[in-house]
Amino acid sequence: MRHKLSITMLALWLACSGAMAQEAIFERRDQGSPRFNADGTVTLSLRAPEAQKVYVVGDCVEGQRAEMKKDGDRWSYTTGQLAPELYNYRFVVDGVEALDPSNIERSRDVRSFMSTFIVTKEVGDQGYLYGNHDVAHGNMAQVWYDSPQLGIQRRMSIYTPAGYDKGKNYPVLYLLHGAGGDEEAWPTLGRVQQIMDNLIALGKAEPMIVVMPNGNASDDASPLLSGLARKDRPKTSYEKSFDDIMKYVENHYKVKKDAASTAVCGLSMGGYHTFMISNLRPGRFNYIGLFSAAIRMGNDNRASLREQLANDPEANKMISSVFAAKPSLYWIAIGREDFLKDQNDTYRAYLDQKGYKYEYFESAGGHIWRNWRIYLSMFAPRLFK
Amino acid sequence: MRHKLSITMLALWLACSGAMAQEAIFERRDQGSPRFNADGTVTLSLRAPEAQKVYVVGDCVEGQRAEMKKDGDRWSYTTGQLAPELYNYRFVVDGVEALDPSNIERSRDVRSFMSTFIVTKEVGDQGYLYGNHDVAHGNMAQVWYDSPQLGIQRRMSIYTPAGYDKGKNYPVLYLLHGAGGDEEAWPTLGRVQQIMDNLIALGKAEPMIVVMPNGNASDDASPLLSGLARKDRPKTSYEKSFDDIMKYVENHYKVKKDAASTAVCGLSMGGYHTFMISNLRPGRFNYIGLFSAAIRMGNDNRASLREQLANDPEANKMISSVFAAKPSLYWIAIGREDFLKDQNDTYRAYLDQKGYKYEYFESAGGHIWRNWRIYLSMFAPRLFK
Repeated sequence: MRHKLSITMLALWLACSGAMAQEAIFERRDQGSPRFNADGTVTLSLRAPEAQKVYVVGDCVEGQRAEMKKDGDRWSYTTGQLAPELYNYRFVVDGVEALDPSNIERSRDVRSFMSTFIVTKEVGDQGYLYGNHDVAHGNMAQVWYDSPQLGIQRRMSIYTPAGYDKGKNYPVLYLLHGAGGDEEAWPTLGRVQQIMDNLIALGKAEPMIVVMPNGNASDDASPLLSGLARKDRPKTSYEKSFDDIMKYVENHYKVKKDAASTAVCGLSMGGYHTFMISNLRPGRFNYIGLFSAAIRMGNDNRASLREQLANDPEANKMISSVFAAKPSLYWIAIGREDFLKDQNDTYRAYLDQKGYKYEYFESAGGHIWRNWRIYLSMFAPRLFK
Repeated sequence: MRHKLSITMLALWLACSGAMAQEAIFERRDQGSPRFNADGTVTLSLRAPEAQKVYVVGDCVEGQRAEMKKDGDRWSYTTGQLAPELYNYRFVVDGVEALDPSNIERSRDVRSFMSTFIVTKEVGDQGYLYGNHDVAHGNMAQVWYDSPQLGIQRRMSIYTPAGYDKGKNYPVLYLLHGAGGDEEAWPTLGRVQQIMDNLIALGKAEPMIVVMPNGNASDDASPLLSGLARKDRPKTSYEKSFDDIMKYVENHYKVKKDAASTAVCGLSMGGYHTFMISNLRPGRFNYIGLFSAAIRMGNDNRASLREQLANDPEANKMISSVFAAKPSLYWIAIGREDFLKDQNDTYRAYLDQKGYKYEYFESAGGHIWRNWRIYLSMFAPRLFK
């Protein structure tokens, strides 16, 4: 006697689809986009017989935006040859944005959604790192913790590597998002599960716990899970309250607590947070990464960073203490077209002048997720070795 | 000295937006939809000056589909007065579907996306149960486990209630999705985090662990996280391999393992799985719930359920054993318009004839998520009391 839901039965259900239209499983979806061509180009297409004009926008589109061509009922656009990467796009149909109905891969960036696809050519290339492969997988959790300093219950995402349950303690990377983002930004747009699973499986990164908190001190969680629209101002800053996060992680996860096993990095506002969190706790983090960071001291909003560094003795003392503790890696990365590049140049000139040891990586492009994924895939392999 | 990222600074960044267009945070989004009106109606609208014709489809729309009216650059539609519920909709712009760009609430049903919103009038109503409130929150995790019986590593979602870390053991509900769905279906469309947090906070349900596995024996995970496109057929059925899931949960979570602390329920194909999983393990589950279940024995695809129940002694023996163990609750729920209603009627007639004790709930509507959320919110409060 065999107990399985037969393919026949499923097929029968599906065959009923047109007549009943009860749930999405029965719905016919558009198909065939994106199509990966043998010559390394990708064709994006959309069935839209009634549309007057269809554009495609995205980072795989030449000039970021192109008019699509109509052939029969379908509009299409073929990209140039694409290097291994994760790409995004969406359609604009008679002035209204539409995601690709053929493609379930899409991600949210703050309030904006894009369809996405990955180009990969060989194991270990940039696209490969972002893809799902048959390797040992870590787990992802969304956990709520008490933040006594902020006075609310807050949510964060935590990645634990494959094998975590086997008993030993792991090093921890605190990975911080940018302004407008939340605790879902790195796990989704940042492809953290994929990058870490793949880097670890390839033997390029040490197994580690990755903690992705919500960096907005007024919020309890991503707007998709938020239960608290806070009206009062938080009692302290996120950077100071960061102890609440570290304490929760150290009490609930099997972590190594020494500085050599602790790293922090973040993008944009999360780079600012990284800067301040490490300044406030010299010697606590052996690895510090500023990704397209907003760099400034929090004490005077009117002064430029240059003025702050020149005139604020307390700022100088904090930074001096961080470097006196000799972190193994103080890593600064930014895109050549990033609007925060001047600020980073200023900060690097200051570090050079003081003789503080750091490493610098300058990429192409601006203030974009593509860069932050790349930076993570470069930074993580440097940790805990 | 105060260390906070100033509002001024954020405002400055945002002000730069038009000029730089580097990331989504800088992007202006459409706004103002959905708008909740004082009279209990909801206005859905979309800016689309160039569109020729815009429809809105969804379960909040009278007749499921309506033409929208253009006023200036905006198209709009106002619903009738809506009862507390979670509603879905999307726009069709010159024949192409588009989600509401003003609304970040959207969910995936297999390959289909809809915008969603919640109507709630008072604490405890159906819409309230699906919303995020300032209550103690449980955690959600996506974990990978070994399934020796299916021969692959597989992914499931697990909810642990607030207070889980305090040491005691919890009862477990295994909650199964339908055909085409995956381990993300109940957590997203099913609003499990919200329903469980709210029911527990209201004192209506016992704190429990909720396990949501992937019910497709050939898949390792949701297509969004899948690393394995399996070519061979699984060595056994999902229902038989279910021991792998229970074993993982019992080894990795603080669970009560007795039948009185174990429940299983599922929708559609997950109802079939529930039926077979409980048939194969009489006395193991004290609470069994069939939500719009596909009910049949797996051994003969050609015979009708009626014929199977009449002629298959083994089927009769299995079902008899389940009821001989006297489960506290054997709950059957289905919508009046569900295409599986006949099958459920047949099964209930059989149970009645045999004198097997069950409870029955018949709702309005068909084979839809609205019903399954309602069923969960009715079933969970009955468990472990």
